[in-house]
Amino acid sequence: MFIDMQQCCRMLGTADDILILCHKSPDGDTVGAAYGLYHALTRLGRRAAVRCSDPWPERFRYLTEAVEMPEFDPKLIVAVDIAGENLLGDGLAGYAGRIDLCIDHHVSNTDYAVCTLLDAKAAAACEIMYSVIRHLGVPVTKPMADALYTGCITDTGCFRYSNTTAETLRTAAELIEAGADSVGITTALFETVSRLRMALENRVMDTLEYHFDGRCASIVMSQALLQELGAKVEDLEGIVSIPRRIEGVQVAVAFRENPSGSYKISVRTGEGADASAICRNFGGGGHVRAAGCNVPGPLEHAQALLLDAIGKELNAQ
Amino acid sequence: MFIDMQQCCRMLGTADDILILCHKSPDGDTVGAAYGLYHALTRLGRRAAVRCSDPWPERFRYLTEAVEMPEFDPKLIVAVDIAGENLLGDGLAGYAGRIDLCIDHHVSNTDYAVCTLLDAKAAAACEIMYSVIRHLGVPVTKPMADALYTGCITDTGCFRYSNTTAETLRTAAELIEAGADSVGITTALFETVSRLRMALENRVMDTLEYHFDGRCASIVMSQALLQELGAKVEDLEGIVSIPRRIEGVQVAVAFRENPSGSYKISVRTGEGADASAICRNFGGGGHVRAAGCNVPGPLEHAQALLLDAIGKELNAQ
Repeated sequence: MFIDMQQCCRMLGTADDILILCHKSPDGDTVGAAYGLYHALTRLGRRAAVRCSDPWPERFRYLTEAVEMPEFDPKLIVAVDIAGENLLGDGLAGYAGRIDLCIDHHVSNTDYAVCTLLDAKAAAACEIMYSVIRHLGVPVTKPMADALYTGCITDTGCFRYSNTTAETLRTAAELIEAGADSVGITTALFETVSRLRMALENRVMDTLEYHFDGRCASIVMSQALLQELGAKVEDLEGIVSIPRRIEGVQVAVAFRENPSGSYKISVRTGEGADASAICRNFGGGGHVRAAGCNVPGPLEHAQALLLDAIGKELNAQ
Repeated sequence: MFIDMQQCCRMLGTADDILILCHKSPDGDTVGAAYGLYHALTRLGRRAAVRCSDPWPERFRYLTEAVEMPEFDPKLIVAVDIAGENLLGDGLAGYAGRIDLCIDHHVSNTDYAVCTLLDAKAAAACEIMYSVIRHLGVPVTKPMADALYTGCITDTGCFRYSNTTAETLRTAAELIEAGADSVGITTALFETVSRLRMALENRVMDTLEYHFDGRCASIVMSQALLQELGAKVEDLEGIVSIPRRIEGVQVAVAFRENPSGSYKISVRTGEGADASAICRNFGGGGHVRAAGCNVPGPLEHAQALLLDAIGKELNAQ
């Protein structure tokens, strides 16, 4: 059942022993919204704890390391930034069917919780959570501000993505005034790159090729490269968006070799091409601007398949 | 003479035939502040014009192309985002000594104008100009909002640089509400890269080397590479800031070969190293975080000179 801000605050305002759940493979928005709410509830004198199926990523340690979470039998279970119960992950799967309150901004939210506060126009769950905390009447402290600022910038590419609204920027302004270390957090999350990542980006971009008069750009990520640099698959995350930024490129496609020799395909598109339509040809899917699928190798075969589908999609538009 | 907002608005509110000057090598902030003021003054029924010593960069065409500037004998000359008269450029040098009003945010402003409205805490001149327009009582229209938004994002790296304040973000929020095409402008200025630039970045980063346990990273930009890719020196602008972002790197140095065979050195530093101190060894200078100098070739000689100076600077801290 979808509820409004007042109903949400009535639930949070009267509860104790509140367990806050993040989605698996936690990003800055789920971690930030959870810790923001945690600090607000403990400030109100409530017992609360944050849990996630996966370990906290190192890069969000400034939010997670200072807090020792208590163990207790929860009386209210809250999911933040979780669009569906399948995103709870193995470690929290036992809470499926038991979520009392969900606070989320995904239009695809499945309404799995007893009550859901959904604002699909919000760029980040942290933007909604800031409003929740204000409505609860809790003064926003530095730990809350740091947590919520984190989600506001990670879900908007530091205010570069098209989901950024006036409300996002105003929320961020108020979080800075509440003490968020905006400079430190931005530098750590957006202006710092590991040596490994820099080497990976450079080597992968060495494989850049253009197709269809530059309307498509492709890159290759081989197992040999991962082994040579001692990198893991997750270190490649997001590299496909680099060729997407090239002027005139409507479709960027990455061919990532699986250990089995098949290829994991990631497609990113701009105006004039549908990524999910391309990937549906091979049993995959996703969104209009970002989608994926798997195709058999070898590389030449995978490339022939994808370029054929991409060419058809570009001509269809 | 430094003046306050009220005095500034009294000057602008009573004047007609207002000439607005930008600094040479115009960036988004000087163009945006000038066009924002231009639209506000014409909205008030005044005759105004914007001029610059250099042609408008192609990437700001959405601000400059629609407006035909009138010719007139100016009664008030306003400089925006211009820290010193030497920045007027050859084409506007004749206005030196004749500037009535300067609106600027550079702490280094030389107070060359009769009256100067300076706010060194503002991230952009456009942030001040938004306040000026509000104080003039002019409703902020889309052309004004587009212009001012441009300066707010170009001078802050789209809100990533440490000069970004709560006030910057709040100004940007209000500009979006006033109709600024934030998504289109951000995509054009920050999310689009030319094929040439992408190739240059990739090839230059192929030359990356680490020194002093990774505390220094160096890159080389050769004449041969420029010729091979058909690139100009200005196409290399800002590439030195890429290695600066690598974790642990305190000093990034770029060796750019001059046609004569000598090397133009660019140094960027983080905490714990002074770029200008490094470059002063070779007759150059600049700021603590960004400086430059020229040294003789060949490359090995230039590298030996710089690495010696960088090593001393790193040990001195």
